[in-house]
Amino acid sequence: MPARTAKRDFPVVNARQILEPGPVVLVSSAWRGKTDIMTMGWHTMMEFTPSLMGCVIASSNNSFGMILKSGSCVVNVPTYDLADKVVGIGDCSGADTDKFAKFGLTPVPAKKVEAPLIKECFASFECEIADKRLVKTYNFFILKIVKAHVATSPKRPKTLHYHGEGVFSVPGTYLDLHKRFARKQNL
Amino acid sequence: MPARTAKRDFPVVNARQILEPGPVVLVSSAWRGKTDIMTMGWHTMMEFTPSLMGCVIASSNNSFGMILKSGSCVVNVPTYDLADKVVGIGDCSGADTDKFAKFGLTPVPAKKVEAPLIKECFASFECEIADKRLVKTYNFFILKIVKAHVATSPKRPKTLHYHGEGVFSVPGTYLDLHKRFARKQNL
Repeated sequence: MPARTAKRDFPVVNARQILEPGPVVLVSSAWRGKTDIMTMGWHTMMEFTPSLMGCVIASSNNSFGMILKSGSCVVNVPTYDLADKVVGIGDCSGADTDKFAKFGLTPVPAKKVEAPLIKECFASFECEIADKRLVKTYNFFILKIVKAHVATSPKRPKTLHYHGEGVFSVPGTYLDLHKRFARKQNL
Repeated sequence: MPARTAKRDFPVVNARQILEPGPVVLVSSAWRGKTDIMTMGWHTMMEFTPSLMGCVIASSNNSFGMILKSGSCVVNVPTYDLADKVVGIGDCSGADTDKFAKFGLTPVPAKKVEAPLIKECFASFECEIADKRLVKTYNFFILKIVKAHVATSPKRPKTLHYHGEGVFSVPGTYLDLHKRFARKQNL
C-alpha cells in the first residue's frame, strides 16, 4: 500500500466531485468503544448545501445498528491499491471481527463525530444522520456531511467502481468538457 | 456516433451491474404528447427485488413535473461517444426545446411505460415511481425498474462518470476479484 499523502480540509459543498462518480466507499462507525467498517456501493449525492448524501445500509450488517445508535459515521473513499481490503471488509462481519486490526488499517480521530477516519483512504467524509424516515422501509439513510478531509494528491484518484459479480473498474480517460457548458450553473 | 448494436431483455434484478458503478444517465419522460430528456448524476440502487433505484430530480427541471404527473420515466445509460449530447441536454430546458430533435436522438416506444427509450444509449431501464415520500423535501424519487433493455455488446461499456466542473471520467482498467469473495452472497 502506498503511503497516503497528507489530507486537507475540503469544502463539504464540493463532496460531489468525489462521490458523484460512484466509487465504492468504506463506512466506518463507532459505538460504545467498538468500531466497525463496511463496504458500500449504494449511495448518491442529494444536496449541495447542506451537503447531503443518501445510502443503503442493510439492517443485516453489523454497522447498521452502530450507525443508527451513534447517529453518525465516516464515509471513506479507497483507491484501487486497497481493492483486496475492500473485498475482505465486505466479506466478513464486524460482529466477530475487529476490521481495523484484521485489515491493517489505521483509525484516525474525526473532528465532529465519534467514528474514526481511515487513514489509508483518499478521502473521508464525517457524517451525521440527517433523516431516517426511509430506514425502516428501505434501510435508506440520509447523511449530512459535516466535515471533509481529502488527500492533497493525486488530483484524479483511482477509485473503485463496482459492477457486481466481483468485478471493479477504475477510471481511465478523463474528458474536460467545461467549455461546452453555456450555463455555468449547470457545471 | 457509432451505430448501437441490438438490445436484449435484461433481468431487472441485475440492473446494479450497470447502475452501481455510477454512470451519468439520461432520463426520458412523456406527458400529454410531449417528451423530455434530462441529464442526471445523482442516483443509487436501493433494492434487488423489486429492482429499486433512488434519484434526485430537481423541481426546477422541466422533467420533474412530467415524471411526477405521468408516474414513470426511462433511465437511459449513454456512453462516451454521446458526451457532447449529455452536456447539451443538461444545459438547456425541455420547456422550450424538443431534445430528441435538437440532439438527433431516436425515441423508441417502451414496453411498459409511456416515456420513450433512447435508441442510441447502451441501456434503458423502464421505471415507475414506487415511492414519492421524499419528493417534497429532497426532490428524491424512488423508482421501480419494471423492464430493462441492454445492448448485446460491448460487455464493458465506456460509461461517463461526472466529477463536477465539466469533467467526466470513463472506466479504464477492470479488476476481476470474484475469487477473493469467500461468501458468494456478498458478490
